Amino acid sequence: MQPQGLLIVISAPSGAGKTTLCRGLTQRFPALQESISYTTRQPRPGEVDGVDYHFVPEEAFRQMVAEHAFIEWAEVHGNLYGTALATIEEARRSGVDILLDIDCQGAKTLKQRGVEGLFVFVLPPSLAELRRRLESRSSDEREVIERRIVRATEEIREARWYDYIVINDRLDEAQELLSAIVTASRATTGRMLGQVAKMFDI
Amino acid sequence: MQPQGLLIVISAPSGAGKTTLCRGLTQRFPALQESISYTTRQPRPGEVDGVDYHFVPEEAFRQMVAEHAFIEWAEVHGNLYGTALATIEEARRSGVDILLDIDCQGAKTLKQRGVEGLFVFVLPPSLAELRRRLESRSSDEREVIERRIVRATEEIREARWYDYIVINDRLDEAQELLSAIVTASRATTGRMLGQVAKMFDI
Repeated sequence: MQPQGLLIVISAPSGAGKTTLCRGLTQRFPALQESISYTTRQPRPGEVDGVDYHFVPEEAFRQMVAEHAFIEWAEVHGNLYGTALATIEEARRSGVDILLDIDCQGAKTLKQRGVEGLFVFVLPPSLAELRRRLESRSSDEREVIERRIVRATEEIREARWYDYIVINDRLDEAQELLSAIVTASRATTGRMLGQVAKMFDI
Repeated sequence: MQPQGLLIVISAPSGAGKTTLCRGLTQRFPALQESISYTTRQPRPGEVDGVDYHFVPEEAFRQMVAEHAFIEWAEVHGNLYGTALATIEEARRSGVDILLDIDCQGAKTLKQRGVEGLFVFVLPPSLAELRRRLESRSSDEREVIERRIVRATEEIREARWYDYIVINDRLDEAQELLSAIVTASRATTGRMLGQVAKMFDI
């Protein structure tokens, strides 16, 4: 009996290091499949369509909304982001673990809809450090940074309903902790019981 | 705000490798404190009083039972084993994580009494391998081995209400998994929220 695929939902304020941590996680667990979200925002330098996001025009996005193709979607900083329902269903069916890197709003919708998953919130060690990290990103303007800081303070309040909180102070330690959370989640009794029942004929 | 100490409860059929795994865990996490159970059984060669167990005469044990000094106690293979209530209370208060290596009966009593903890069940990869391991222990006689095998098949059914199941096939992998479970348990939101609230003034 193969267990259902595990949905690993990771959220963080912008600048907390979530993207780097997620990349580290897929390197550590090659079988882990990244869910690719849909968005109407413009690609940043280096971002690739179909790899980082499915970059779609707003009209196409609205069409998918109308067709209930998204399990969650939201507007963030004036852009639309959505997770396709098909992605989640595929994980459930195929037994493949899926990594879903979405913002708090999106994650909350999944939680409220009763979608089973491992919800992890990544935090910077402080707001001062978050500001420093955002400022070192050449792509963001001052106004954008201020908006992100305000938003971060709002988002951090959402941490309370996640399953796990990872503080990304030293990247290697945060990476190790995140890996431990994923490893441990594969040994929960809910995931193991089918296999154990078969092994020991109980 | 210091989080309460975590109680890590580990059970396994005799011969599954629990003692070795627990020793590995305390080496990996030096701050983890082993709870020392009380028992009326005779020390095995190499076992030390106050380290492996508190070895006490049956009369002293019965006296502790009468004084409600045990949060759980049970008779196993004709010997009495008990966990002192003080051990658990100390963990809660001091914020020290405590490792409790007890059998299914004892663990079930804790669970039924609503004691909060991380309940982990260690399994051998098969009953055949369990038999092989028990037979290679020079200290056990054939009759004892048969009794342990019968008991193991009963105990394995109890795995279903534990939080995690670790199959000890390759020791290094099982050790790694057990470490991940302990590491992850320290990042649960319940444990982190006090610290996060303080850090971000939320």
